[in-house]
Amino acid sequence: MPVHMTTNHRFTLAARPVGLPKPSDFKLEEEPVADPGDGQLLVKIRYISLDPAMRGWMNDTKSYMPPIKLGDVIRAVGIGEVVASKHPGFAVGDLAAGLFGVQEYALSDGKGLNKVPPVAPPPVFLSALGMPGLTAYFGLLDIGKPEPGQTVVVSGAAGAVGSVVGQIAKIKGCRAVGIAGGADKCKYLVDELGFDAAIDYKATDVKAALREHCPKGIDVYFDNVGGDILDAALAQLAMRARVIICGAISQYNSSTVKGPSNYLSLLVNRATMTGMVVMDYTPRFVPAIMEMAGWMGAGKLKSREDIVKGLETFPQTLLKLFSGENFGKLLLEV
Amino acid sequence: MPVHMTTNHRFTLAARPVGLPKPSDFKLEEEPVADPGDGQLLVKIRYISLDPAMRGWMNDTKSYMPPIKLGDVIRAVGIGEVVASKHPGFAVGDLAAGLFGVQEYALSDGKGLNKVPPVAPPPVFLSALGMPGLTAYFGLLDIGKPEPGQTVVVSGAAGAVGSVVGQIAKIKGCRAVGIAGGADKCKYLVDELGFDAAIDYKATDVKAALREHCPKGIDVYFDNVGGDILDAALAQLAMRARVIICGAISQYNSSTVKGPSNYLSLLVNRATMTGMVVMDYTPRFVPAIMEMAGWMGAGKLKSREDIVKGLETFPQTLLKLFSGENFGKLLLEV
Repeated sequence: MPVHMTTNHRFTLAARPVGLPKPSDFKLEEEPVADPGDGQLLVKIRYISLDPAMRGWMNDTKSYMPPIKLGDVIRAVGIGEVVASKHPGFAVGDLAAGLFGVQEYALSDGKGLNKVPPVAPPPVFLSALGMPGLTAYFGLLDIGKPEPGQTVVVSGAAGAVGSVVGQIAKIKGCRAVGIAGGADKCKYLVDELGFDAAIDYKATDVKAALREHCPKGIDVYFDNVGGDILDAALAQLAMRARVIICGAISQYNSSTVKGPSNYLSLLVNRATMTGMVVMDYTPRFVPAIMEMAGWMGAGKLKSREDIVKGLETFPQTLLKLFSGENFGKLLLEV
Repeated sequence: MPVHMTTNHRFTLAARPVGLPKPSDFKLEEEPVADPGDGQLLVKIRYISLDPAMRGWMNDTKSYMPPIKLGDVIRAVGIGEVVASKHPGFAVGDLAAGLFGVQEYALSDGKGLNKVPPVAPPPVFLSALGMPGLTAYFGLLDIGKPEPGQTVVVSGAAGAVGSVVGQIAKIKGCRAVGIAGGADKCKYLVDELGFDAAIDYKATDVKAALREHCPKGIDVYFDNVGGDILDAALAQLAMRARVIICGAISQYNSSTVKGPSNYLSLLVNRATMTGMVVMDYTPRFVPAIMEMAGWMGAGKLKSREDIVKGLETFPQTLLKLFSGENFGKLLLEV
């Protein structure tokens, strides 16, 4: 079937969400698929990554990327198969990853796209060997600079970024403590991923548990959640601790962000809090993925995906991120 | 008169303050002055430095120094004259600076004491050439790492630390913007100290003023105050900005600290927020003071002190720090 006879389904931004996104904030549209022009390729999307950062992109505020415009397709990273190409770098049948959006087909000029090597199942390239894994890798190693024997704490520890942070911490000879929601996730962190301890923030006083599990203080705190958990970690910093601000999922749906009231712990402990955006490390992605693929091959790094079928489930599936319901990297299978 | 016939007056901590310190939190005591034993010296204190950090030391909380114990003399830096000595390093008539406390006489074993050279009036060694100046020097240069042409913003800019931060920023070829309370202080910053702009936080929308005066964003923000002003500065950070957390005078009398709700600006701008304590730089104090003394000699660095006479005024005088009433380094003249 020529591609121009097929139909693309896509979700566009109908309204800027206030608080948790509602189904009416999105519009499911259909359009004919366009044939690629010279230098273009057409990708049939197989998996779409649902990420906390997407919530921020829906706001009309200055950030590290421009906001999604009303009426535009929802920005999302995905992986798919090239089904037509007039681009010299991509052939039909290639797997490619890129910012394809929440839709079935994406036309691309190839910029920002990466070919996906057949060394792991495609979903892994949206998880441990994709942006989340790279975020963990550069945030922990470049900013956190963990040393053997030090204590690394990560929030959102069962998530796509957090689970890799803890595993790399172990690879580097650190004590890894994860904070996650629910006994299942905590058991998984310790039993499957080798964390030294896991704290169930839904059932435990996080501050007391951090005191118990980090008796020498926290040397590196990798924060994905913000809010009260960030404050609990700040209260337990070791001298010269490094705090990495990677995200703040507890705050993304609030109109007012709760600032960390324990930030003066930075002063007492001569500690540093640094924000990071993985895109800054683009030139170093390939060697980082190769190193992580090596760790996977050696059984030291595991990836877990939570795959939900059906593009049409997007509005509800996205919410799993904010309820903490997903277990592993949340993906839509198209 | 032998020293054992003289009387020492001193303020001790009678109760831990809740909010702003009250006169009843302090007790004025008298005691006979003891003769120095072997290896000891006795200092007649001439000037006592009143510092925001003293408020923190009055709380019973973990910090970079132990809390002042109830009944102990109030910890404070001072400068005085050696009036009796059985210490080989100090002779009668020497001027010395150290943590002498809020009192008239201090007995010391010489540890942590520094002889004060006669190159500037003694009060200057509690101001631009003392801890406040050193705090500005190391915080700005070591953590802020300002580059020529960059924009440095400092809060508490007319204070002992802030005024030096802005002047060193100018010496280093930066744009210096100060935030202070009141038209007089702002005029002083621009007209006397050479700041490029000053923002009167009592009369202006600080966020809008920072946008106006820092059109390329803030590269280095040196924070002495916390609260809303910290948030306003975070909103205007340039990419890869450095935020130095030196103090938070707006928060020291609150039982709940207001965390910076704009902290996610660190993420958007890949910025860093770092706490500093000047004591960490002790081994580098002497060359730093020499460099600053050189700047003073060249007319590039000015020191201003707000000197209040009378040890007995301590409880009220201390409050000037929190009302922002002092103009220059606040000192008690004994």
